[in-house]
Amino acid sequence: MRNPILVEVLRGGLVESRHCGAVAVVDADGRRALALGDIERPIYPRSAIKALQALALVESGAADRYGLGPPELALACASHSGESGHVTTATRMLALAGLDPTALKCGPHWPIHQPSAQALAREGGTATALHNNCSGKHAGFLCTACALEANRARYVEPAHPVQRLVKATLEGLGATPIGEDVCAVDGCSAPTWALPLDTLARAFARFGTGVGLAPERAKAATRLRAACAAHPWHVAGTGRFCTGIMQRFGARVFVKTGAEGVYCGALPEQGLGIAVKCDDGASRAAEVMMAATLARLMHSDADRAALEAYVRPALRNWNGIAVGALRPTDALAA
Amino acid sequence: MRNPILVEVLRGGLVESRHCGAVAVVDADGRRALALGDIERPIYPRSAIKALQALALVESGAADRYGLGPPELALACASHSGESGHVTTATRMLALAGLDPTALKCGPHWPIHQPSAQALAREGGTATALHNNCSGKHAGFLCTACALEANRARYVEPAHPVQRLVKATLEGLGATPIGEDVCAVDGCSAPTWALPLDTLARAFARFGTGVGLAPERAKAATRLRAACAAHPWHVAGTGRFCTGIMQRFGARVFVKTGAEGVYCGALPEQGLGIAVKCDDGASRAAEVMMAATLARLMHSDADRAALEAYVRPALRNWNGIAVGALRPTDALAA
Repeated sequence: MRNPILVEVLRGGLVESRHCGAVAVVDADGRRALALGDIERPIYPRSAIKALQALALVESGAADRYGLGPPELALACASHSGESGHVTTATRMLALAGLDPTALKCGPHWPIHQPSAQALAREGGTATALHNNCSGKHAGFLCTACALEANRARYVEPAHPVQRLVKATLEGLGATPIGEDVCAVDGCSAPTWALPLDTLARAFARFGTGVGLAPERAKAATRLRAACAAHPWHVAGTGRFCTGIMQRFGARVFVKTGAEGVYCGALPEQGLGIAVKCDDGASRAAEVMMAATLARLMHSDADRAALEAYVRPALRNWNGIAVGALRPTDALAA
Repeated sequence: MRNPILVEVLRGGLVESRHCGAVAVVDADGRRALALGDIERPIYPRSAIKALQALALVESGAADRYGLGPPELALACASHSGESGHVTTATRMLALAGLDPTALKCGPHWPIHQPSAQALAREGGTATALHNNCSGKHAGFLCTACALEANRARYVEPAHPVQRLVKATLEGLGATPIGEDVCAVDGCSAPTWALPLDTLARAFARFGTGVGLAPERAKAATRLRAACAAHPWHVAGTGRFCTGIMQRFGARVFVKTGAEGVYCGALPEQGLGIAVKCDDGASRAAEVMMAATLARLMHSDADRAALEAYVRPALRNWNGIAVGALRPTDALAA
């Protein structure tokens, strides 16, 4: 089965490029509100489930033990842009657990936020693991490892107690066991287990509502969502989609990007979870898929209007001239 | 008609992402040697036809009049990485025509080559039009405008004499008139006219062989191909696909990337032109499409072996761990 074309890229009068994908919107009981394309094929959720991975940080007691506040919890759920505030928060998370940045196993990369990368170079600095968009998640893994009194050097191994806890949490949220054979290595060296979009969407419906979760887990989910809603800049950064959406909608919408065109989200008021995969891995199209899906599910004109710039983003060239736009196809926007 | 899946992205044991596309391989008379997907739908060739755009620079007499040597001609055909040598050559091209960098209308962007961007920031510099990957092409347009004694401020307008010359050249090479309605604005503000892949491939077969071209044009094409073969670093830059392929194959293979997943090329020995479009616009997949197409057309094991790293590139994460790979599907590799 080929997934439908969901997003078109226009330049001048022609469609220049096309993106296929699949979208699942599911409630906490697994009932489908929307299904586009193949939502039963396992996909790697990558960073789109960082908030689910962070449940172990709260449920293990590590967040309380080390005194992590809302910005730290938001950063644990983040693919941040490596801006100086993100680096400061990641450093503080590690310090609260008595660690320094050498404990991070995510690998170095330059800040995603270009002005921050340029400022870092201007100051004679270089890329470190703290600038890695996953440093908050890794700091969270390390805090959890410390609270569990587990090995601190091998926390990214699939058999490590932290990753066992993460896997069990994912299985519980999705109400589906995950085989060891669908485990791959993520960009930051943490394990990523493949799950179908419908399972992911259901997991996010539960994360967003607490329906079907043990009270302790529902409480942890509420705490993480509140942290992200209060500190959306910590979840991504300046000019980023996740930050912009959560700044506008607050606790009403949770969204999180992942590499290779994945997006997950939750609409607590509607009781729905969302999972999106752009087949070719393009973030630009996954954003339009998520924005158009949110617009379909919103009831007020004002909410839909606020999404319009994300549903049909303009393309500008190096001179700032509008040369085209992205748009959802009828299959997605209907 | 949906184009076939031509490239898969593997992570762990699963296909994580998929890229659809079309490939045309055509000789100078328009006979098809390979056709995958829809090769008759017009696509914007973007930067993949810079070498064809540069024919006007040579044929107008501008290249001789201003004493442009092979590195300058290679840069006129380039999407360069903004390394210091590229910037120096672009500056020299302008100076030879009595111009300075303020004449460039391509807009500023930071060097594509990240160490060069970091070095620029470290020195307190900023992005300029000279760093724009198209600055060599624009310097070529400006030299042509000067030689034609045409306006130097409006050279990117579709009605400008330089762009009229470029359009007429494209029509001649492809043996097909181009309507005004398929003109869009490129990333550098120059016009880009949509052409079908089979027409583009035929144009590159003629560019690569001179078959069917007036002697003056055939001579200009030979001169540009020789310049690119002698200075492949000037056509792209450190670590880039075009540079690596032409360093290995010299004058036997011409290849040139364009934005939104376009690739064009020529195999003079085989008398063939190649045009590739990845539907979703991904460069990583367009490179695999071009490399796998070249491998199909090569006769020797050594040539095919030299392409293997481009046909099946490994994916490494921030820690340098091999996490997956790209590969052509059977439809492409067969």
